[in-house]
Amino acid sequence: MLAEALEMASPSASYSITMRVQLDDPKGVGQIATAVGDSGGAVVALDVVESRHSSLVVDLTCNAGDGEHADRLTKAVEAVPGARVRAVSDRTLLLHLGGKLAVASKVPLRTRDDLSMAYTPGVARVCRAIAERPEVARNLTIKRNTVAVVTDGSAVLGLGNIGPAAAMPVMEGKAVLFKRFADIDAWPVCLDTQDVDEIVRTVELIAPTYGGINLEDIAAPRCFEVERRLREKLDIPVFHDDQHGTAIAVLAALTNALRVVNKVFSDIRVVVLGAGAAGVAICDILLEEGVGELLAVDKEGILARGMDLDPSKAALAARTNPLGHRGGLDEALAGADVLIGVSGPNLVVEDQLASMAPGSVVFALANPDPEVDPAVARRHAAVVATGRSDEPNQINNVLVFPGVFRGALDAGAHKITPAIEVAAAHALAAVVSDEELSPTYIVPSVFNNAVVPAVAGAVQSAAVSGRPAEPPLPPAPPA
Amino acid sequence: MLAEALEMASPSASYSITMRVQLDDPKGVGQIATAVGDSGGAVVALDVVESRHSSLVVDLTCNAGDGEHADRLTKAVEAVPGARVRAVSDRTLLLHLGGKLAVASKVPLRTRDDLSMAYTPGVARVCRAIAERPEVARNLTIKRNTVAVVTDGSAVLGLGNIGPAAAMPVMEGKAVLFKRFADIDAWPVCLDTQDVDEIVRTVELIAPTYGGINLEDIAAPRCFEVERRLREKLDIPVFHDDQHGTAIAVLAALTNALRVVNKVFSDIRVVVLGAGAAGVAICDILLEEGVGELLAVDKEGILARGMDLDPSKAALAARTNPLGHRGGLDEALAGADVLIGVSGPNLVVEDQLASMAPGSVVFALANPDPEVDPAVARRHAAVVATGRSDEPNQINNVLVFPGVFRGALDAGAHKITPAIEVAAAHALAAVVSDEELSPTYIVPSVFNNAVVPAVAGAVQSAAVSGRPAEPPLPPAPPA
Repeated sequence: MLAEALEMASPSASYSITMRVQLDDPKGVGQIATAVGDSGGAVVALDVVESRHSSLVVDLTCNAGDGEHADRLTKAVEAVPGARVRAVSDRTLLLHLGGKLAVASKVPLRTRDDLSMAYTPGVARVCRAIAERPEVARNLTIKRNTVAVVTDGSAVLGLGNIGPAAAMPVMEGKAVLFKRFADIDAWPVCLDTQDVDEIVRTVELIAPTYGGINLEDIAAPRCFEVERRLREKLDIPVFHDDQHGTAIAVLAALTNALRVVNKVFSDIRVVVLGAGAAGVAICDILLEEGVGELLAVDKEGILARGMDLDPSKAALAARTNPLGHRGGLDEALAGADVLIGVSGPNLVVEDQLASMAPGSVVFALANPDPEVDPAVARRHAAVVATGRSDEPNQINNVLVFPGVFRGALDAGAHKITPAIEVAAAHALAAVVSDEELSPTYIVPSVFNNAVVPAVAGAVQSAAVSGRPAEPPLPPAPPA
Repeated sequence: MLAEALEMASPSASYSITMRVQLDDPKGVGQIATAVGDSGGAVVALDVVESRHSSLVVDLTCNAGDGEHADRLTKAVEAVPGARVRAVSDRTLLLHLGGKLAVASKVPLRTRDDLSMAYTPGVARVCRAIAERPEVARNLTIKRNTVAVVTDGSAVLGLGNIGPAAAMPVMEGKAVLFKRFADIDAWPVCLDTQDVDEIVRTVELIAPTYGGINLEDIAAPRCFEVERRLREKLDIPVFHDDQHGTAIAVLAALTNALRVVNKVFSDIRVVVLGAGAAGVAICDILLEEGVGELLAVDKEGILARGMDLDPSKAALAARTNPLGHRGGLDEALAGADVLIGVSGPNLVVEDQLASMAPGSVVFALANPDPEVDPAVARRHAAVVATGRSDEPNQINNVLVFPGVFRGALDAGAHKITPAIEVAAAHALAAVVSDEELSPTYIVPSVFNNAVVPAVAGAVQSAAVSGRPAEPPLPPAPPA
């Protein structure tokens, strides 16, 4: 969910509106554009719909910061003498009309012969082949390229527990990203329950169709148990993106940040602020990487053995903080090399950053508002990253999950292991060359075409697949 | 499942194979083609892959009747002196490589702006709109055009209980048909359970994504309870195609058959042989239509009140056979106007058909082998129909479900009622004009473009939707 939450500060295409404006005097066009600019909006387009001597109708498209801002822009235009706003549309909502996904047929269906192969009676033979040798389902159905994007709607972006129906646009969007970046066919599975047993059982029951399960926006600590139990039950990869996608992106970014400041993992002290889904997974991947000293901090302060904690935090305390530090963020950060915030807005103050070791690294990933203003952080830290798209070094899961699933599906992997996750992170980090690397460029752009092949390749290589060699199709097609 | 089962008698494209054949003598080409023809195969294509003075490699594509026949053709070719079959591929299996469906994105994702509208941060506003007004989910997600094709794999075609993975090719095929004939986005949901409670609960939990549920190939009597309970729980149409799709197709065909023989529903006696999923639904739609006398016959003979029957048959007995007839198929058919067989092969003998009333109608719909040889049936009946594509009058659900769901989705219908089903049947029957109507043309072809619009229009008109008027999008887009 890193970098996937609400960012509604400055005018952007995400809140683009089109006003249809009638003007009594054609010269008013300049005035309405000025009115938008004066109110902080950005005019993107002005299309004349109807032009007469004495009047003009135009479609004025402009970017706003958020819904309220859009309202203010509309009012500013209406305040222009002789201007009347007849309708306002919203580009983002319009884009979503009818949803963002379609199901496409990969086979022709023009003739009776086509029908007899794709459907009855020919299809019966394909069914029989699978019934006799279940392993060929991966070849003869959509399974090997198809991923379920599963949510219970309990922790959607920064919106919280909005339920399965309202989560659909995010899950559809995720499927669009899977398709765009990794040519994976992903399908939204929005469950009308928030009961762990029911979530687990439902995913288990629908699994025959899928080659992988991407869990998404399920609240902690429920997400841990859902993932653990599904990983036990299913023979296809189960990956909670909010945990592991974030962890892989963070490890990649931190790998490059350490290249910038010339430190190594085994020597550093890292403080992870926030012990939710993302925080736990980040700690795990850092331990897998062999980090020197790791402290997790949450509301209770530095997590340590012997504290009265909920089960997931107690388990985290047991595998971090080897020296048994006690205290709060002040104590944790003094002399620390790295702060990774996956918590909430404005929880870190400047003095705390000042107390960190020289050449410090700060990832303030809370969205939409980071743990500390990145401009403030840059006064003290050598490298600063956030989850925001309007700051340098955006740490974004979109860099991770398409390649991870592409590699796992192609390898026929049963599981995404910690070793696979670390391999994915290293591959992502390596996309940034030594020449490119700088304090403001530690992660590649999501539109960098090298990212998915690099991550997918690393995952495929690292996948120590328990699966036996893919069975050949009976009979083999001629070359 | 009518006309959806195994038909593997004569050579057809559904069992097309391609042999790669190496010939020591190029003149052997004629001999291998002859060998295929002599063994009852049909040569479709002969492509030269490699040509030398002393040898030739060709790809010989031919249609076979079934797998055994394909083996015989291969052996016949191998028996030709100097010919060696290097590989055999199978067109139907090759067509299924990688499955038949893909997920397509309906939105562009080229730039950061695109990303910010289709995904974060813009998508958050769409989520919020749905959270605030759940009814707009139909507009702002894929829901209104998306149908789940749900099976437990317990009664797949004529193959029986082959399970969810082996059922996938049929469900994918069904989704292909939905797309091809009605531009509906359908998605396979193959459940790894055959427990009624689990099936019902799982469909309930995944329902937020869908605008309709098509139940498919679920064994009787389980299918009745699954459908009944889902209809109670969900506010979207639930339609078990093996029941209602078949019933609608049968009513349409019977409507036209009665036009041919100049009889009316209220005057006729109909015998339905087979009280499974299809038989029960056919009885129900005939009762809804106002049939004169209706007898259901199963293993126990004519179903009648007072017999010791399972619950679904007892209920059927209670609403059929008003005069309390007792006996077997002999007694039922003597003087009957219509026989509708949805049972098994060769259960009806010629004498029984001879005992029917003049101008009788026989639908022998068991697949792949009908209740009676249609050639025999035609000696006695004025109109004969089957589920087979190689006989006139194929009664096929493909004529029904695309239009039914198209109409139901467009109407925003909550349920497919009996009245809607009858309206769909009448619309399907009316596609055959008086001029076209004949004993061998009572149902249109599945490739007739008039079918889906006719059925969909009738369903939409008949859908007495409890749903309030579709809410307008906030705000309205400019024209």
